[in-house]
Amino acid sequence: MQKGIFISVEGPDGAGKTSVITQLLPRLADYGKVVTTREPGGVPIAEKIREVILNPEHTGMDDKTELLLYIAARRQHLKERIEPALEAGNILLVDRFIDSSVAYQGFGRGLNPADIDWLNHFATDGLVPDLTLYFDIDVEEGLARIAQTRGHEVNRLDMESLGLHQRVREGYLSILNKQPDRLVKIDASQPLEQVVADAWSVIETRFFKD
Amino acid sequence: MQKGIFISVEGPDGAGKTSVITQLLPRLADYGKVVTTREPGGVPIAEKIREVILNPEHTGMDDKTELLLYIAARRQHLKERIEPALEAGNILLVDRFIDSSVAYQGFGRGLNPADIDWLNHFATDGLVPDLTLYFDIDVEEGLARIAQTRGHEVNRLDMESLGLHQRVREGYLSILNKQPDRLVKIDASQPLEQVVADAWSVIETRFFKD
Repeated sequence: MQKGIFISVEGPDGAGKTSVITQLLPRLADYGKVVTTREPGGVPIAEKIREVILNPEHTGMDDKTELLLYIAARRQHLKERIEPALEAGNILLVDRFIDSSVAYQGFGRGLNPADIDWLNHFATDGLVPDLTLYFDIDVEEGLARIAQTRGHEVNRLDMESLGLHQRVREGYLSILNKQPDRLVKIDASQPLEQVVADAWSVIETRFFKD
Repeated sequence: MQKGIFISVEGPDGAGKTSVITQLLPRLADYGKVVTTREPGGVPIAEKIREVILNPEHTGMDDKTELLLYIAARRQHLKERIEPALEAGNILLVDRFIDSSVAYQGFGRGLNPADIDWLNHFATDGLVPDLTLYFDIDVEEGLARIAQTRGHEVNRLDMESLGLHQRVREGYLSILNKQPDRLVKIDASQPLEQVVADAWSVIETRFFKD
């Protein structure tokens, strides 16, 4: 019954996803009502789950527990936000979706990617984005940007090692390699204007050119 | 590496599980250190997840979200409480475990029991109790006991319909039918002393008689 356009945005914190999304909004607005949201969170129950995941006191959280919480938040967000927006024919931009779990909990933490595929399918009833923009950036450059932007506001996940972030990037590149029709890589090390231009070019070609 | 004894206790609220566990403790203490715990919860991270599940404001929680949260809480409880207790050689009594998900979210809510089996296996790495005591009671009698005991303290799950509780009972009886070696049914409609005597008889025969 999907009538809208479903675009997910992926990549590490520090790649500029939020800034790019903000700049894409006015261009997308020419083509329909635009809804932006993010994972984990986006709706009250999923935000409560997000609080449990990101609580800095929860250093003893098991990797499978963390994955299951992300998947639970995804399910609730899908039912309350993604499906209604698509059914209403909106253009939906979601900051993080199924690929984040494969990249972070799979490649990053070492959980089995096939198990994560199963969980993603269970949570989404098989719904996948029409397009996924993957913002690619060198790991150290991405982390430097986070430190600059946030100052001292660092959460539990930011404290993870450089090695984890490198494995996450490999994870994204592996998904990109397997699903080249759905994922498109954007070079996020460029100036913001160029990143936005590249992202817009991909979206325009995919959805709005005859 | 398991050295302890793992007993799970199942059945509806109102079947008297907590009272029976309390009365079993002194008898079990003759045979080793006894640890009692419960799901969902039992450790701080799982208690936080429990709060999200049982929050009466969360009436819009999707059934799959609820299931995934129970499974996440189970995973954390397993790693922090169950596995360490068993490795230490303790006698472990757990109030609710894998069968609750199959009975409540599977038979009760209508989710696919095979999916729940997959999720349980993922969360527990295949660990199953040595013995499961299922406290069986007529649904209306169980609900009447809850109302009597709690007075006005009724949470979101208690508000569910009688029909759900009947399907849950059918679920437990179905699991019992499939796994008669692990599950033993105890008639929980009897006077408490008799229920305790029956439960103890099963435990003694299974673990402590030559």
